[in-house]
Amino acid sequence: MIKVGIIGSTGYAGGELARLLYHHKEAKVVWYGSRSYIDKKYSQVFGNFTEIVDEKCLEDNMEELASKVDVIFTATPQGLCSSLVNEEILKKVKIIDLSADFRIKDVATYEKWYGIKHGSPQYIEEAVYGLCEVNREKVKGARIIANPGCFTTCSILTAYPLVKEGIIDANTLIIDAKSGTSGAGRGAKVNNLFCEVNENIKAYGVLTHRHTPEIEEQLGYADGQDIKIIFTPHLVPMNRGILVTEYATLKKQVSYEEVKAIYDKYYKEEVFVRVLEKDVCPETKWVEGSNYVDVNFKIDERTNRIVMMGALDNIVKGAAGQAIQNMNLLFGLPETEGLQFVPIFP
Amino acid sequence: MIKVGIIGSTGYAGGELARLLYHHKEAKVVWYGSRSYIDKKYSQVFGNFTEIVDEKCLEDNMEELASKVDVIFTATPQGLCSSLVNEEILKKVKIIDLSADFRIKDVATYEKWYGIKHGSPQYIEEAVYGLCEVNREKVKGARIIANPGCFTTCSILTAYPLVKEGIIDANTLIIDAKSGTSGAGRGAKVNNLFCEVNENIKAYGVLTHRHTPEIEEQLGYADGQDIKIIFTPHLVPMNRGILVTEYATLKKQVSYEEVKAIYDKYYKEEVFVRVLEKDVCPETKWVEGSNYVDVNFKIDERTNRIVMMGALDNIVKGAAGQAIQNMNLLFGLPETEGLQFVPIFP
Amino acid sequence: MIKVGIIGSTGYAGGELARLLYHHKEAKVVWYGSRSYIDKKYSQVFGNFTEIVDEKCLEDNMEELASKVDVIFTATPQGLCSSLVNEEILKKVKIIDLSADFRIKDVATYEKWYGIKHGSPQYIEEAVYGLCEVNREKVKGARIIANPGCFTTCSILTAYPLVKEGIIDANTLIIDAKSGTSGAGRGAKVNNLFCEVNENIKAYGVLTHRHTPEIEEQLGYADGQDIKIIFTPHLVPMNRGILVTEYATLKKQVSYEEVKAIYDKYYKEEVFVRVLEKDVCPETKWVEGSNYVDVNFKIDERTNRIVMMGALDNIVKGAAGQAIQNMNLLFGLPETEGLQFVPIFP
Amino acid sequence: MIKVGIIGSTGYAGGELARLLYHHKEAKVVWYGSRSYIDKKYSQVFGNFTEIVDEKCLEDNMEELASKVDVIFTATPQGLCSSLVNEEILKKVKIIDLSADFRIKDVATYEKWYGIKHGSPQYIEEAVYGLCEVNREKVKGARIIANPGCFTTCSILTAYPLVKEGIIDANTLIIDAKSGTSGAGRGAKVNNLFCEVNENIKAYGVLTHRHTPEIEEQLGYADGQDIKIIFTPHLVPMNRGILVTEYATLKKQVSYEEVKAIYDKYYKEEVFVRVLEKDVCPETKWVEGSNYVDVNFKIDERTNRIVMMGALDNIVKGAAGQAIQNMNLLFGLPETEGLQFVPIFP
Repeated sequence: MIKVGIIGSTGYAGGELARLLYHHKEAKVVWYGSRSYIDKKYSQVFGNFTEIVDEKCLEDNMEELASKVDVIFTATPQGLCSSLVNEEILKKVKIIDLSADFRIKDVATYEKWYGIKHGSPQYIEEAVYGLCEVNREKVKGARIIANPGCFTTCSILTAYPLVKEGIIDANTLIIDAKSGTSGAGRGAKVNNLFCEVNENIKAYGVLTHRHTPEIEEQLGYADGQDIKIIFTPHLVPMNRGILVTEYATLKKQVSYEEVKAIYDKYYKEEVFVRVLEKDVCPETKWVEGSNYVDVNFKIDERTNRIVMMGALDNIVKGAAGQAIQNMNLLFGLPETEGLQFVPIFP
Repeated sequence: MIKVGIIGSTGYAGGELARLLYHHKEAKVVWYGSRSYIDKKYSQVFGNFTEIVDEKCLEDNMEELASKVDVIFTATPQGLCSSLVNEEILKKVKIIDLSADFRIKDVATYEKWYGIKHGSPQYIEEAVYGLCEVNREKVKGARIIANPGCFTTCSILTAYPLVKEGIIDANTLIIDAKSGTSGAGRGAKVNNLFCEVNENIKAYGVLTHRHTPEIEEQLGYADGQDIKIIFTPHLVPMNRGILVTEYATLKKQVSYEEVKAIYDKYYKEEVFVRVLEKDVCPETKWVEGSNYVDVNFKIDERTNRIVMMGALDNIVKGAAGQAIQNMNLLFGLPETEGLQFVPIFP
Repeated sequence: MIKVGIIGSTGYAGGELARLLYHHKEAKVVWYGSRSYIDKKYSQVFGNFTEIVDEKCLEDNMEELASKVDVIFTATPQGLCSSLVNEEILKKVKIIDLSADFRIKDVATYEKWYGIKHGSPQYIEEAVYGLCEVNREKVKGARIIANPGCFTTCSILTAYPLVKEGIIDANTLIIDAKSGTSGAGRGAKVNNLFCEVNENIKAYGVLTHRHTPEIEEQLGYADGQDIKIIFTPHLVPMNRGILVTEYATLKKQVSYEEVKAIYDKYYKEEVFVRVLEKDVCPETKWVEGSNYVDVNFKIDERTNRIVMMGALDNIVKGAAGQAIQNMNLLFGLPETEGLQFVPIFP
Repeated sequence: MIKVGIIGSTGYAGGELARLLYHHKEAKVVWYGSRSYIDKKYSQVFGNFTEIVDEKCLEDNMEELASKVDVIFTATPQGLCSSLVNEEILKKVKIIDLSADFRIKDVATYEKWYGIKHGSPQYIEEAVYGLCEVNREKVKGARIIANPGCFTTCSILTAYPLVKEGIIDANTLIIDAKSGTSGAGRGAKVNNLFCEVNENIKAYGVLTHRHTPEIEEQLGYADGQDIKIIFTPHLVPMNRGILVTEYATLKKQVSYEEVKAIYDKYYKEEVFVRVLEKDVCPETKWVEGSNYVDVNFKIDERTNRIVMMGALDNIVKGAAGQAIQNMNLLFGLPETEGLQFVPIFP
């Protein structure tokens, strides 16, 4: 049984880690870390765990934790994980970091977009970007997994096959993304109050959102060159879910069948990526509560462009679910263990 | 492996049966019945089942079905199950009816409140009211299970211990219930359109809702006499969840501890009923997607009354989950098999 | 033109005062007070006022304000208005207090339920409870108006005629109230985040909510004696709206027509109270954005009780609209000036 | 006083016409047409009109209506208006058609995208496209106004100045649009049920939505040539509101100030178009219930593209409000009469 510690277990991603791991046959949470709720019962913070989890919240002490668990998930704000990790810790445990600290290989880029100094740049190189469908083999041997961002996972997987195969001009890529509000976290901010979000939609972080360089880096690897894209997130009045609508210019004329074949080449064997039937648009509701990503596309012959669409649950495949998928790979377990839930509808 | 047939598999309760049974180790759906979608792929009706269920919808032929499965769930409008069931069918399969056809023992009462003629009154007597926490032993030997209504399950379990122990005057009981919109079904009606329900709350079926006689009958058994209550349902702009707030006059002065002890007497060993800590109010979000019922109470010394509260997921414990709990009892399986999900939050 | 100052103009009720007063022919806001946003443009706090209101937010200085305006609305937390008001101010301006400071005549009751010391008990006696439909004449000559609470307005108006006429036993009254989230204010609290409220319903403040003594006092006047009721508020995932469902025992047998005649006696001439047609249940959506209260009732012959229902917009008739209605009375204007908006649907 | 007839008064746009016209000083609805609810009281269909409108619904008889009113609004499905209109009618009344029948000048294009035969192509030429900010002068003398679509109004006004001034390459335009559910109408369809829309977002009509040729035609006029764009609508779980996020390649390097000056050139004098302050993103909540369109933009130097954003209330500026704005122009009234409401928040 893998012993798991969660740092930041009382945020939305932390709560989802606890929920999913409860159903995992080979892992068990033994440390519910939460700076804000130390000594409070976990089920008093998250009432869904009443009579299910009896533990109290513990402090975010990574050193102590490292001696007690096999893997640490850090579901904390940017900067925390990189400020705590060190060689001694890494000798003892695997780290799966749900923050952005180890996602971007270029420190300058990280520090520019995030506006903070990186706490341990010496580990960036070895950290593996944990997008399982793309980096599966590398993940298996890593000490630090940089768990991808929610928007990023959806944005990359939706376009990846077409970039990799040179079907679209990656520099023309425009990603219009829509997210449920859990993506904004559980901090008490006026902007995230019910009355401010409900009956409302808006763009935010236009041209400055931090997931932009992450998408550019990863799709740039697929494209074999540096690329520049536009990424625009929007806040949608729903709890969970991300939908991306992506637009790009086709490099050459292609048929539906050709593009479908390319998607199938990459995703037919992937349990968690579902390429939908022709003309069926992904909906966030069809993946809610699950680790699935639904993708589809439509070719616009009139403008020689393609519209790609992808949907996932931002707290599952966009955070906790993918983190567990990485854990499964790290520990040699079936990749789908603890993750094969049917999405919940309605 | 128990072979399961679902009649009415493309409604919300039918879809939840399919979802929950997919995770059940000892049962498997082999017949997805749906009068409206015959020959359509089930995953085209419910996109969450894409790449999970490959079957097509079949017609609602109970005779044929009876030869192919071990148990039939009827998740259909009132009147259908009672019009189809007969001795030959009952010799072959167990029936778990999610409609109201076999819930009320008095045919006249049924016909009065439902406004339809009962199709097979000869089976009412033997049908067992499948409120597992109350009728566990009777369920085990039944041929027909009358699966309780969603409001009813929540209303009864919230008040049951206090009625049974004679703490409250059951004839003073007022049940103010609030339900998510999935309780209204998947039929295309203007009243249930998004724009009509969203940003709105209203009472409906005031003093005429059909769950009233069902609650009266069951709580009447607990009270040892016929009772009359008030039950008022409200429509809430959310998908899932029922919350009941119940008010009754205390028969004698009681302390918090005394009442708590009574709830514990009935529910401490019940996996699916959680009596919350003092002063914690049940919230539908804390039980969403799960088979739990959360209950609590507060004594009003000022008026000599008690406020009882209960919350459940109307499609799980209020329909499909409880139906599976009944199936587990019927087939000698662990009662919790396939049902121990942590509620999903947020 | 009446010059208006708003203290607390950047809360939800303050914003609604600004919105409604913008359409008022005889009044104009000249002071947008807001401790939190001093010197920030009002339209930067509330984007709906872009290019409509150009003023900046000013501090909450009641003394200075008193010399500049004819009437001050205090849309602030409990305790502020009573701590600021004094004889000098009252000589210069009218005060319409949207907080609870002057609603309850008995200081001890106020201090017990609100848990704070009253700042100027000497003004409680003269303050008039501004429920216009009940206290119209008294309002006209007041210096301080205690603007009723949102739940209170709805709860009282729904039951008032039947209490006043002795039709129901007021001590059996149970008020089950449901409120949109704007009632919780614009403060940044985890409990009011979108993800905590959405897809959720819960009771709160059970038996301890501060609107209880306010309702008891006012309905007690109508009943001619002290009464004790039960009041239970619930939080509903919508922005605006309050629905109350009230239950009481009838003192004698009455027909629909008799009760309807009583409601009509009190409300036929009231512009803002609409007694609905038989069997039509009030819905919050039908009053949204307006100053209307919709009420109706249903007699339960089975239990000798009556169910009364009422709906209003908590920020309009439950706060800002009623405050303006009071202002109109105070200044001898038509009572409906600036308030006759058709509710907005959907 | 202008006498108004509404054909299709019981849809969402029809209801909004009735609401706004109730507040209009120079116009009065005298005919509430509704094929589905003939002889039913209008306030029984739309409860918000209780005690406000006493009329009953009448049939959709345009001939009779033409003799009784000065202007007819047709808020009906495509094809109805063009099938009813004739010379005799046009001699008597003005027609403001909220459907698409007269929006597109090329009959073949109309018939291709809408899949129906046009009922009176002889009137297409003279019909004026009622986008007031662009076609103000032409509107004044028209007999038939083709009231623009909701998506179209928002999409065009957001990009119009930059297309007109040749700042962007109109053929690179990508419009990613998000709409509240009232845009889908009040018809009873499973897809628009609360449970299907709530907690969900999806694209629909990808590359085939009928507002595409309408946008292309109008922006083509501004650009001086035929253009082809991509338009993708999404369904958002909210009642009202449209947000568009538009992307285009800049024809030359421009500064924020230059682009701002161009927007100001076109919109500074426009009451209903608000160009927001730098870096403020339009939100649908800030225009809800009003006739405003909020627009803004952001230049992406990294990719030489520009992101434009626009928000409006789809039932007001996107339908009923703009129709009344057209009526005001037609009858020589102040363009803003009956339309200057502060948006409602929250």
